Amino acid sequence: MNHLSFSVEPADVSIITLTTDFGTGSPYVAAMKGSILSINPQATLIDLTHEVPAQDVRKGAVVLDDVTGQFPDDTIHVVVIDPGVGTERAILYALIGGQQYIAPDNGLLSRLAERIMPSKLIRLTEPQFWADEVSATFHGRDIMGPAAAHLSLGVQAERLGMPVESLAGLHWPEVRQSPLRWESEVLAIGSFGNLITNITADMLAGRPTDERVFIVCNIYETSGIYRTYAEQLSGTFVAVVGSTNRLELALVGSNAAKRLGIEVGSPVVLSWE
Amino acid sequence: MNHLSFSVEPADVSIITLTTDFGTGSPYVAAMKGSILSINPQATLIDLTHEVPAQDVRKGAVVLDDVTGQFPDDTIHVVVIDPGVGTERAILYALIGGQQYIAPDNGLLSRLAERIMPSKLIRLTEPQFWADEVSATFHGRDIMGPAAAHLSLGVQAERLGMPVESLAGLHWPEVRQSPLRWESEVLAIGSFGNLITNITADMLAGRPTDERVFIVCNIYETSGIYRTYAEQLSGTFVAVVGSTNRLELALVGSNAAKRLGIEVGSPVVLSWE
Amino acid sequence: MNHLSFSVEPADVSIITLTTDFGTGSPYVAAMKGSILSINPQATLIDLTHEVPAQDVRKGAVVLDDVTGQFPDDTIHVVVIDPGVGTERAILYALIGGQQYIAPDNGLLSRLAERIMPSKLIRLTEPQFWADEVSATFHGRDIMGPAAAHLSLGVQAERLGMPVESLAGLHWPEVRQSPLRWESEVLAIGSFGNLITNITADMLAGRPTDERVFIVCNIYETSGIYRTYAEQLSGTFVAVVGSTNRLELALVGSNAAKRLGIEVGSPVVLSWE
Repeated sequence: MNHLSFSVEPADVSIITLTTDFGTGSPYVAAMKGSILSINPQATLIDLTHEVPAQDVRKGAVVLDDVTGQFPDDTIHVVVIDPGVGTERAILYALIGGQQYIAPDNGLLSRLAERIMPSKLIRLTEPQFWADEVSATFHGRDIMGPAAAHLSLGVQAERLGMPVESLAGLHWPEVRQSPLRWESEVLAIGSFGNLITNITADMLAGRPTDERVFIVCNIYETSGIYRTYAEQLSGTFVAVVGSTNRLELALVGSNAAKRLGIEVGSPVVLSWE
Repeated sequence: MNHLSFSVEPADVSIITLTTDFGTGSPYVAAMKGSILSINPQATLIDLTHEVPAQDVRKGAVVLDDVTGQFPDDTIHVVVIDPGVGTERAILYALIGGQQYIAPDNGLLSRLAERIMPSKLIRLTEPQFWADEVSATFHGRDIMGPAAAHLSLGVQAERLGMPVESLAGLHWPEVRQSPLRWESEVLAIGSFGNLITNITADMLAGRPTDERVFIVCNIYETSGIYRTYAEQLSGTFVAVVGSTNRLELALVGSNAAKRLGIEVGSPVVLSWE
Repeated sequence: MNHLSFSVEPADVSIITLTTDFGTGSPYVAAMKGSILSINPQATLIDLTHEVPAQDVRKGAVVLDDVTGQFPDDTIHVVVIDPGVGTERAILYALIGGQQYIAPDNGLLSRLAERIMPSKLIRLTEPQFWADEVSATFHGRDIMGPAAAHLSLGVQAERLGMPVESLAGLHWPEVRQSPLRWESEVLAIGSFGNLITNITADMLAGRPTDERVFIVCNIYETSGIYRTYAEQLSGTFVAVVGSTNRLELALVGSNAAKRLGIEVGSPVVLSWE
């Protein structure tokens, strides 16, 4: 008798998440799933969310940044919030912090890329990894879904197209700055209710960020800007410049937007005495 | 004997989609999934949509026709829009263009069958492939789901029941025809916003379909009836008799219903000079 | 060399369902899925429902009782309706009738446990099966999801924490009782439209339950209390004390709440002549 050793490979798991502004239950979502499964019937499809408001790239960028890091490395996130479909905007593959993304180059990935330098950026140019016929209006089904499916089967990202150097940012409104007073506004609500502003860590460099700075949003105020939430008691209204390098306001351990009734566009004022 | 040959079978993938009018998040949907997974825990379940308006068989027929062709061959589509549950209406298995369907015989499959002749039609009569107890009101959980699960495990469709020759059509309102003017209406909105009428290719045979025919829907008009959208510029309002053999109005590369604010019931008038 | 026969084990299937009050499309749901898949990428995730009204533990308890029994044995049901998150409420593992549950100990499992004695109850205390960092506000992502994922990989439930003897019940309003008249109300609507009251089988012991008892809800009335629906014709309005040991009103083969327009809080009066 002879030794015989062999191992059955652990089933290769390929997780593909979908984020769109189509609305839950949209047949467009089902069409994308069909187009992916037609290429890789074994892909594991996860709905990240389809409730991003129509064409709200900024909200999409926030959701991706808040949630995709929870997934296992190599998860492929397909993001179809695509007001520029049919124009010359690029479609990108990006590898950011171990997660893979396929999205139009319209700023969707910019909030992630503020925190973590993308380690790979490729513009999708190779139609052999797309549907046979590509419509003018539905690149999620005809380009992004199929490209993700091929990736999930082991196609190297480099084969999808050509490397690019940078990705599009988002236009955030300017901060009105006078020497002792800055006027900003809430630009987005994070998935967990944080109030995101357009004031960056760079802008704050050289300014006092201790108790000498007062931050007011609607009728709520606080002083001092912190690096993490952990320094404050639960329920406290705080200003934080966290890992995204943006000033955010939060209720520690709670949902600031819901609890305080604050919306996109609410004024945020910083002042120094 | 020395021969040693073995192969690990590629995992058999069984995709089952669900289309209902239960509403997203309905526990009825979860009950169907449970009843399927109890028979085949390895089935891959995909929500096609649960947002078909209650008992709207026509809309269901349109969604199936628009989307199911995207799925890999042999996908099993379970469709539970079933105003006749508890009556003597049949439940059918149908094989249409490589896709498998299980649905009540109430017209849900008729739009698909207008385009592609079903290659197999079987009436479900064999209770051994149903739940042990069949309720009077929930055949999705007790008959259709279980039958789909058994199919996905390799049961031959023929074992589910007995062959039938035809399936139920849908009642579409009549077209009011005078020699130079036909009055119709929008009967359904396609998943991608096309306006579907009850005028068929057959009715148009022998009539001029070139620039001599004018088509008006609400305040929008066009002339000529085309075979495909590709002949027209993006954004053009066009009339097409496509693969479904029905006259449809569309905005090339866009969503006509949303962009033009057209709804089911909007008048469609054809006139010849 | 010898004959060699071996079999490839059928792939182990681990089904994890999610029930929350987050709302369909909430990024919180996606975050939970990511945290589970990061531990067991092969878990089969099923959305039971995310449409339980916010913090409505009673409705959650009803949904679990109505639907989870449809799933295959050993399915793991994670339930995050958790108004007490951040307080000292326990998180439990429960084995009830072959199904596994992970839920806060706030009454969510009490309706199931009224019918079937839990065969295992364990309080989750072992942080090695949780996320590395546990937030104060999102135990679904940081404790319940990860614990479910470890279970699905074969970790014994006993390793998650320490056995407990009982689980929390739900507070149901009292029944106002006079000798010949009891006043109750509809406390919850079952997933399939049954009207659930707070009158239990115990309370009815020794009382006439035949045609001498009249039951009125809004303008609808019936007499006699039955053990099963099957004794009555389809469409009949009936009173039943079924497997949950609670008096429920139902329309046989139909949705009583929808058809009769009855809501939580509608009065239910029993009277004896």
